[in-house]
Amino acid sequence: MKQKLTSVQEIDGVVQQSHLAFQSYKHVSGKKKAVFLRAIADEIEALGTELISTAMRETNLPEARIVNERGRTTSHCRMFADLVEEGSWVEARVDTAIPNRMPAPKPDLRKMLVPIGPVVVFGAANFPLAYSTAGGDTASALASGCSVIVKAHPAHAETSQLVATAIARAARTTGMPEYVFQHVHGAGFEVGQALVKHPLTKAVGFTGSLSGGKALFDLANQRPEPIPVFAEMSSINPVILLPETLSREAAKTASTLAASITLGVGQFCTNPGLLIALEDDALRIFIGALSMEIQKVLPATMLHQGIAENYAQKLKQALAQKGVIVEGQSSVSGNPAQGMPLVASVSAATFLANPTLAEEVFGPFSLIVKCKDIHELYAVVKNGHGQLTSTLMGDEAEVSKHHALLDLLTEKAGRLIINGVPTGVEVCPSQMHGGPFPATTDSRFTAVGTDSIKRFARPVAYQNFPESLLPAELKTENPLGIWRMVNGEFKK
Amino acid sequence: MKQKLTSVQEIDGVVQQSHLAFQSYKHVSGKKKAVFLRAIADEIEALGTELISTAMRETNLPEARIVNERGRTTSHCRMFADLVEEGSWVEARVDTAIPNRMPAPKPDLRKMLVPIGPVVVFGAANFPLAYSTAGGDTASALASGCSVIVKAHPAHAETSQLVATAIARAARTTGMPEYVFQHVHGAGFEVGQALVKHPLTKAVGFTGSLSGGKALFDLANQRPEPIPVFAEMSSINPVILLPETLSREAAKTASTLAASITLGVGQFCTNPGLLIALEDDALRIFIGALSMEIQKVLPATMLHQGIAENYAQKLKQALAQKGVIVEGQSSVSGNPAQGMPLVASVSAATFLANPTLAEEVFGPFSLIVKCKDIHELYAVVKNGHGQLTSTLMGDEAEVSKHHALLDLLTEKAGRLIINGVPTGVEVCPSQMHGGPFPATTDSRFTAVGTDSIKRFARPVAYQNFPESLLPAELKTENPLGIWRMVNGEFKK
Repeated sequence: MKQKLTSVQEIDGVVQQSHLAFQSYKHVSGKKKAVFLRAIADEIEALGTELISTAMRETNLPEARIVNERGRTTSHCRMFADLVEEGSWVEARVDTAIPNRMPAPKPDLRKMLVPIGPVVVFGAANFPLAYSTAGGDTASALASGCSVIVKAHPAHAETSQLVATAIARAARTTGMPEYVFQHVHGAGFEVGQALVKHPLTKAVGFTGSLSGGKALFDLANQRPEPIPVFAEMSSINPVILLPETLSREAAKTASTLAASITLGVGQFCTNPGLLIALEDDALRIFIGALSMEIQKVLPATMLHQGIAENYAQKLKQALAQKGVIVEGQSSVSGNPAQGMPLVASVSAATFLANPTLAEEVFGPFSLIVKCKDIHELYAVVKNGHGQLTSTLMGDEAEVSKHHALLDLLTEKAGRLIINGVPTGVEVCPSQMHGGPFPATTDSRFTAVGTDSIKRFARPVAYQNFPESLLPAELKTENPLGIWRMVNGEFKK
Repeated sequence: MKQKLTSVQEIDGVVQQSHLAFQSYKHVSGKKKAVFLRAIADEIEALGTELISTAMRETNLPEARIVNERGRTTSHCRMFADLVEEGSWVEARVDTAIPNRMPAPKPDLRKMLVPIGPVVVFGAANFPLAYSTAGGDTASALASGCSVIVKAHPAHAETSQLVATAIARAARTTGMPEYVFQHVHGAGFEVGQALVKHPLTKAVGFTGSLSGGKALFDLANQRPEPIPVFAEMSSINPVILLPETLSREAAKTASTLAASITLGVGQFCTNPGLLIALEDDALRIFIGALSMEIQKVLPATMLHQGIAENYAQKLKQALAQKGVIVEGQSSVSGNPAQGMPLVASVSAATFLANPTLAEEVFGPFSLIVKCKDIHELYAVVKNGHGQLTSTLMGDEAEVSKHHALLDLLTEKAGRLIINGVPTGVEVCPSQMHGGPFPATTDSRFTAVGTDSIKRFARPVAYQNFPESLLPAELKTENPLGIWRMVNGEFKK
């Protein structure tokens, strides 16, 4: 199947249609949007084995993973359906008038979130379903009431096309406006750039590389009217191994981390790319155990040739840095399309002196930073960039002695994990999949979970509106029965 | 009193101190921050008549206005005190573990907002108290737990210094960390630029001109680590006069609008700079009445020489545009430091063809756009930029016929007003003082009201944390008694 490429000349028409669709879609009730979102989930499931086999062929990911990812995708569509059906997500605030207040009367003022406008979504290579065409960006934007244009990822264009067909079918059968969702294929960067630069585009969602995300962020900020770009980009997800716990649990920790480092050929945004520990006997035992675990993992085919080449090149670069020692690697040599599991180590002093070593190596690789003492360990953490996650491996008693470390990590990351692995991103209200730059372009938003809808909504206040002209969410009698802040009090 | 200017070389030390203060201030409880914020209000009041007379002298604003503004400033400090004392603003979400869930266990995950880091605030010339040193930006940033550095506005440097002294005193008496609040004076742009560029600065609040705000926004986005800038900049606050209502209430509407246009010598962000109406008999009567009202208003001294010169220059430019007719002006000629109240008119066709006419003229001026028919009126609205406010003058029956107009206005503005004036910004949970560019740099946030705290906070998720290591806001027993979303349910 060959996809029809959209030309730059066609983009104006696409965005105009999206804007037109937005004019009616923004008025669709939460209940009806819920029907639409659930129909998307149903239609994706109805694609059956064709979707699974297509995604497997295009991404080299195994069946179990794709099936799992499909489940995640349909789940978040249904989660957003529940969210907008319930309706409290609009953060309604009602402050009623006090006409006789002195020195000036208080007006009637009410506020709620409204959809921001047409949203352009760039899906991720590493999640052909869950962070792609019907991924979290699309689902949250549609849930908020925005129209969506997805730029298909060329590495899984057919999978993307199948999902797009499912969404289009769901839109049709549930009576949504035509063009509420559109899907374009583009050969180079030009189509994506044209989408971001179009004056009627109002927000952008992106998951991918630092260079790609930053380029879109800059482009959006250079528009005559800058628009928000939420780009989830680069994270090495440091894991700090606290010494006392490590001395007791070196082997178990090695096994847990080896699995996390090599999961999905290391192709997760939350892959633990940096292990930080004190250089002591426990660490030596741990490194020995981790090396043995890594040796057992076979190289596997990566998502596409570009990612495999990038991994090989970044790995080569990392290993070529002064002071970097290979500690363990798969016992089998792979082919150029495969990612070779590998762990290496370096002294903290060398690591701190060489910024190249803090760059993301996207694949089944992790660098162990060996610290002379706890001060050096703190220095390594302090020196780190923004991250999606940071992990502390240590039991309660030992972590309790390192409040300052927890503090430092909190400043650098969106999600903190104690005694766990960063891979595995639960989709729920408490999820924060985001973090300070370069993890994302705005640390105040999450890409996963119910709150991700806030990226694509903005507040509007209504002053002195007659009841008949207020949105249902703000009418005095609260016909939707949503949670609201009324004269300072939270109530239903 | 001559202020000590801070040099660019000193800025590194200032931001380092702010960062250090943040390390302890971020852990100060909501209850203690409330004591601090209330002490700020008390200390500002304790400045007594010295503050009032200094502000009057520096800004040329009358006593009643300054007293009013002081009340607004102390009120918002106390409002944020109440907000953080109560504590629910952190948007706590708790999702408890399901260890036996298939196919994978659900981890314990909890999330809340934490302060973003040191915030740099640039106060507004037009509000020496309420949007300046202890203005909404400073109060909301301190409430969230951020340290703050205020760059004093040179037009009211002494007022700013007095308020800074009050804040410093409040910090000292309530045991806050040294340098939680700092205040610098700078001669040129360099000091402000150095503050925004410093790697430890994590967010910026600005109120002022489009050129100033956009320059800071660009600077912040060009940093190696971009940071959020909330700049409130430029708005002409269109008022649409619906024909039927206008035909009945031309004189009353003229009187109401004349007062709003000239309030505070037109020096409000929400000043109605554009009146849009159908060209009919009602409009002719209205223009006659408005002209008479404007004639009665005396020119008054503007905030400072620069603003007066800017107004004179922009007014001259507007009046020099082809097709612009002066409809009324103050009967008294002012001096060069004063702002001359003036209203002019232009045809919609001319207005649409000349973008200069849509630029903000900061002062007591409003341009009446005369539309041939309702389609042209819609075209004028559709052509408009982002605004802080948009107003519809019309009764319920007539506004009900213009849902499409309300819709259009919603896309362009942060606050919609029916039958009122945009001046007067209530400080309350339902306020939205913001809007699409160029009104602000991010339409998803407000500069006024309790929700303005969200500009300076970001979510952090805590996975698999033992109870003892969780922040109080997220502990299972909810010791702070705040509203939280627990396993999908809102509860206290």
